[in-house]
Parts: sequence; C-alpha cells; structure tokens
Amino acid sequence: MLKPILFLLSFLAVTPAIAQAGNGITIGHTDSVFSKTLNEPRKLWIYVPESNNKDARSPVLYLLDGDDLFLTAASIVSHLGESNSNSVIPDMIIVGIGNTDRTRDLTPTHDPEHKTSGGAEKFTTFIEKELIPYVDNHYPTVPHRVLTGHSFAGLFVMNTVSNHPTLFNSYLALDPSVWWNKMQPLKQIQANIGRQNFGGQKLFIGLSNLNDTAAARKDTTNATIATRSHLGVRDVFQHTSNKSVNFRYKYFPDETHGTLPMPGIYDGLKAIFDFYKRPSFSRIGERGFNADSLLNAHYTNVSKQMGYTILPPESLVSGLAWLCSMRNMPKEQLQYYKLNLTNYPKSVQAHLQLGEYYEQINDKKAAIDYYTKALALQEDRELRNYIKELKGK
Amino acid sequence: MLKPILFLLSFLAVTPAIAQAGNGITIGHTDSVFSKTLNEPRKLWIYVPESNNKDARSPVLYLLDGDDLFLTAASIVSHLGESNSNSVIPDMIIVGIGNTDRTRDLTPTHDPEHKTSGGAEKFTTFIEKELIPYVDNHYPTVPHRVLTGHSFAGLFVMNTVSNHPTLFNSYLALDPSVWWNKMQPLKQIQANIGRQNFGGQKLFIGLSNLNDTAAARKDTTNATIATRSHLGVRDVFQHTSNKSVNFRYKYFPDETHGTLPMPGIYDGLKAIFDFYKRPSFSRIGERGFNADSLLNAHYTNVSKQMGYTILPPESLVSGLAWLCSMRNMPKEQLQYYKLNLTNYPKSVQAHLQLGEYYEQINDKKAAIDYYTKALALQEDRELRNYIKELKGK
Repeated sequence: MLKPILFLLSFLAVTPAIAQAGNGITIGHTDSVFSKTLNEPRKLWIYVPESNNKDARSPVLYLLDGDDLFLTAASIVSHLGESNSNSVIPDMIIVGIGNTDRTRDLTPTHDPEHKTSGGAEKFTTFIEKELIPYVDNHYPTVPHRVLTGHSFAGLFVMNTVSNHPTLFNSYLALDPSVWWNKMQPLKQIQANIGRQNFGGQKLFIGLSNLNDTAAARKDTTNATIATRSHLGVRDVFQHTSNKSVNFRYKYFPDETHGTLPMPGIYDGLKAIFDFYKRPSFSRIGERGFNADSLLNAHYTNVSKQMGYTILPPESLVSGLAWLCSMRNMPKEQLQYYKLNLTNYPKSVQAHLQLGEYYEQINDKKAAIDYYTKALALQEDRELRNYIKELKGK
Repeated sequence: MLKPILFLLSFLAVTPAIAQAGNGITIGHTDSVFSKTLNEPRKLWIYVPESNNKDARSPVLYLLDGDDLFLTAASIVSHLGESNSNSVIPDMIIVGIGNTDRTRDLTPTHDPEHKTSGGAEKFTTFIEKELIPYVDNHYPTVPHRVLTGHSFAGLFVMNTVSNHPTLFNSYLALDPSVWWNKMQPLKQIQANIGRQNFGGQKLFIGLSNLNDTAAARKDTTNATIATRSHLGVRDVFQHTSNKSVNFRYKYFPDETHGTLPMPGIYDGLKAIFDFYKRPSFSRIGERGFNADSLLNAHYTNVSKQMGYTILPPESLVSGLAWLCSMRNMPKEQLQYYKLNLTNYPKSVQAHLQLGEYYEQINDKKAAIDYYTKALALQEDRELRNYIKELKGK
C-alpha cells in the first residue's frame, strides 16, 4: 500500500514562493506600464504566488513605495498565505508601484514649499484607469484589491479611502502623513466623517511610537505635529458613529517610523483578513461536532467577504479525509475525497487519492479506474507500471 | 552652492538589498558545500547585504530550515539593518542550510520510532568543522555568529547552546521541540542548568500560542506535551540563578506554531542586538548634551558587544555634521567631516563633503584640494569640469 502514497508525495511537493534561475534566488519580476495620465512610464514590482493549481486566480495587493517595500510585502504575503500552508490570508499578487516624483503623486493638496506637490488625484486616475486594467489584463487576478502605504503613501491611502472608497476593498495606512500642509488632510477628514459613505470597506491604521503621546497631545509645536496628526486621524475613526467604514487600529510601541512597515503590513493584513483563517477540525468525529456544516459555513462566509466564490482548498479537504481515516470514519473519508474531485475535477491528486482509497478497500476495479484517469491527466511512468501490475494481480 | 550637493546625491544612492538580473528580482544565491562528516553535499541559501563600502564585513546569521525560512529571514535583516537606514541590527550575511534528512540532523537523541534520528552532534560537527570555515573563506564575514531555528530546528538550537555554547555568539530558538523523545532534551536542560557555563552568550526563546497555558500545565496527555515542554524550558532559563547566560523571552499570543518564524525572528534579532540601535542626537548643540561622548560611548559598547571594532557609520556622522550646519555650529560640523575622513580615508563622500564645506567658507584652495582627492578616488566628468571651473574663478 505504500506505493500510491509515494506517487502522491511526488505530486504534492509544495512550490515555494521563491524560485531559482541559475543560482540566483528570485522572488518576482519587474514590469512597466506607460501612463498617459502622468505622461511617463511607471515601473512595477510584481510578485505572483506559486500555486499547485494552474487555474488559481488571486486578489491583488497594490503597494505604494514599491521600490522600498517590495521585499517586505512579498515575504509577508508568502509567509502568511496559502502556499506556505499557514493560510492566515489568501495568496495575493503584489503590484509594487515604483516612485518617480513621490511628493507630487502622494500629496492631495498643493503646498507652495513643494513645487510639484498636490498630484494625488491625478495619480489615483492613473491607478484606476490605467494600472488596474493593465494588471487585470496581464495577471491572474480576481476583483478584490487592497491598497497599502506608509508615511506620504499612507496619506495617499487616506485620501483614496475618503474620495474613492470603493476603488479598493481594503485600505492599510501606516503612519499616514495627515500633518501635510498645515494638517489640511486631517482637518478635511474630521469635517467630512459624519456624512461620508465608505461603502462598508475596511480601513486599518497602524501607528509607530513617535513621541510621548500624552505630552504630544498638549504640545502645539512642529516637533510633535506628526504624532498629533496620527492620533487625530485615529481618534476620528475610533469615535465616529459612521458605520459605513470597518475600522481597525493597532499601535506599535516598539517600532519607529522607519521600522513600522514590516510589522504594520503583517498585522494589517491579518486584521483585514481576520475572517480568512481556516477553522480547526481537530474535533472531527466527536459527538456534536459537525465538520461539514463548519466547512460550508466558513467558505460561504469567506466567499461573501471576498466578493467571489472560494471553494474549500483541496489540501484542507485532503487533510479532513486523512483525519477521518485515522479515526476510522471511512464513509466520511470517501465523501471528502469525492468533494475534492467535484471541486477540482482536473486534479491528479484527487484521482490518486480515490484510487488509493478503493485499493485499500480491495475494490481493484474502481482503483484502476481512478489511477487511469490520473494518468490521463498527467503521464507518469511509475504510475503506468503500477496500474499494469495491479491489472495483472 | 547646489552643484556639490548634486554630486553627493549621485554618490550616495542607497544600494537596495534586492537586485535585478534581466527583469527578475533577486535576493540572494544558492551555494553548496560537500560535507565529509555527513558524506553528502549540502545546499546553502545565501544573502549578502549590499553596502556602499566595498570593504564592509558582516556578522553571519546561520539559519536552519534554510529552504523554508530564507525569504523570511532575508526580508527581516534587510528591513532592520544598516542598508535600509533603520540600523536596528547590523547588516548580516545569511547562510540558510537546506535540509536533506531533517529529523536525523536536528534531533539530539535516538528515538526508535524515527529510524535515522539522533544526529544533532554529527550535524554540529559539520557546522563547526566544515560549514563555518567554508563561509569564512568565501564571504566577507566577521567572527560574530547567530544561530536560528524553529520547531525541530529550535530543539537543535537548544542542544547547541547547551553543549557548544561558544560556537555562536547568540542563539534564537522558536517553539523548540524539547518534547522530543519523551521530553528527554527538556529533562537534560533542567538537570544541567545549575552547573552549566554558557560563557555569557545570549539566548532568545520565542513561543507561539499553542494551547490554553494554565490548562496545559495541569494536563498530562500528549495533546499538550508541546506546550508544557515549551513552558518548561522557558521556566528553566527564567528562574535559574545561573548568570552565565543572557536570557530573553517573548510570548506571541497572536501567532500559531506555523506563523511564529516571521515575528519571532524579527523580535528575536531586535532583542539580541538591543545594544546596537543608534542613539538619538536630536539634542545636539543643547547645553549639557555631549554628542561626542555619546557617540564614543555608544560605539565603544557596540564594539565590545560584537567582539570587534565598529567605527561610527559614515552616514550617521554625516548626519551629525548636517545637524551642526543647521544649528550654526561650523566648528563641530568640520570636526565630524574630519572624523569621517579619518575613519573612511578612501571614501569619495568624505572628501566631497570637506570640499563643499571649504567652498562654503570661501577657502577655495582647500575646496579644490579635497575635490581633487575625491576625483582621484573615483573619476567623474562633471566633478572634473567643476574643479576646472572653480580654478578659473
């Protein structure tokens, strides 16, 4: 009975998010899109999660300051995602946007001290009309988008969630520079919060430890303007009665402005996707524990939150079948293998597992049938010989 | 006066830790060393921090489970290190060790249920006699080493700090599997802690949230053996009167066993290098604030802790000079530029900054002298023309 398991293992090898070309270790590639709106080419830093499923499509993390933060974001998504089997957040495509004139693109209003400033709306037009269509045309996306930014880019995130709330599904702003231009952005958010419709979207704000908070609140000098503005925008969303925004906040007492992005993106994505994590099925088989209804309820909710259908992952359902076999529940074991075949009809693994199941209960005919179907999906000399052997027995 | 600043900027461009070959984004390369001890080749995952200083040498992070954790560790070191200007920890070379027979290499005693288990001492011999010499011969290292491992690899870290405490300077163990083989490793640590000499080395243990802690302590079944063992090893080091080990501990209530490595390595490295972070010089020029003695004391201590001389970084001292120029302290400004020239005599930047300084105080002769020396270190057509222009004035 060992042989089919060996086949399985060879098919199941997890594809890591990092690849090798020659002896270089590669995590993504660069791309470029020419923007008519901005009249310049924009460099993109692209991460596409590897998947065993060639048809996999993924939500997209749009990452501002892509040149600086690409490695940070790619490692976090790879660490928390499905490919790494942590499955705390979905596998995501990352589109890091490189900077050309950072102050121009990320600031919402013109400050005469910064000649090119005030171009945030134009930059948003580029993202909406040019970048998102380009990404959706060239990469395997689903229509679920997260926008992430730190510092000036956090200010841009705040501007986008305020003025274009449905452009992204979730917004992640770290130390957003709402102190810009004499605190104008903060004042505008404060003035509009009551009547704004955020469409139910999610907003996560993460703040680093800039100054003594209590002292900063009392201060009026420029030395504490960043801290006061950060706390100010946090206060607005924490105390508003506006229910159209799903607000999360975390303070990072051990981080500086410069170190915030890594723990900020890490905890921000966990907060935004807090509905995503797989529930525990360790009580399967116990009286009163209904694994099927838990599985259905979880993926119905995940699908609703993501905005498109998400089937129970093949690896999870295989795991449930394995638990059932350990706990002597052959009927349920078979049912989970069949569920995988229904959900993933082109899966070699789903066919092999059913073949192995039938071989174990001595239904040779059914076993040969599923092994043969697996072989038709993917040629394998060892499997071909094994089927021949089985037929001869 | 703008032109010299433009020169400076072009020389100062920060080299990112990620590079591009074609349109691939590369973070490191693989290498291989043949082990006579283990009679097999071992694959290595290598990250070398980029530096503006070609002579830079770095401490080494030895990373177990290198195939799984390389991207995670590389992004953390790149994020917290000097190259990224966060400077919370030193720039480090990472040597990720790929697995062949993980259970064989990482377990210290033989458990008959795992045929090849019990090879940790042999694997340590490979690291000590073959791997470290290879790395020191092929990469720009300094003799300061950190060993990092998670789960079975955390068990290996605990075995190494116990039996070979001076092989590494610091040890970072995450959810160490001291439950191995009926808790034998834990029992051994408990038995020996009183008489062991750890040589003053550092040990960081990070634990994830496995079970309800209070309930697990009372339980005696296998379901909670991991939690009880993790807490047990934490207790030993937290309560020992043995002062020869510098112990740090952090509990991660929001992490599972699988997600622990990223926040665990992040916070572990911050804890191990808590002496490293640059002090704040924002009060420079204020009465009673002695920047020089702070600078000296800090880098004397950093050198002592690292075990080799570390000069104040050129970028930090340039920053101090800039602060002095803002606060009208030309004498101190000049002194910091000269300190950089003393510490980094081959630095183009150090010469350019002195040239610019003398140009600003209208000492044309000295300015031309330093610009000319910069040119001798690195040819630059614009700079050559600028010197000619200056001479003609």
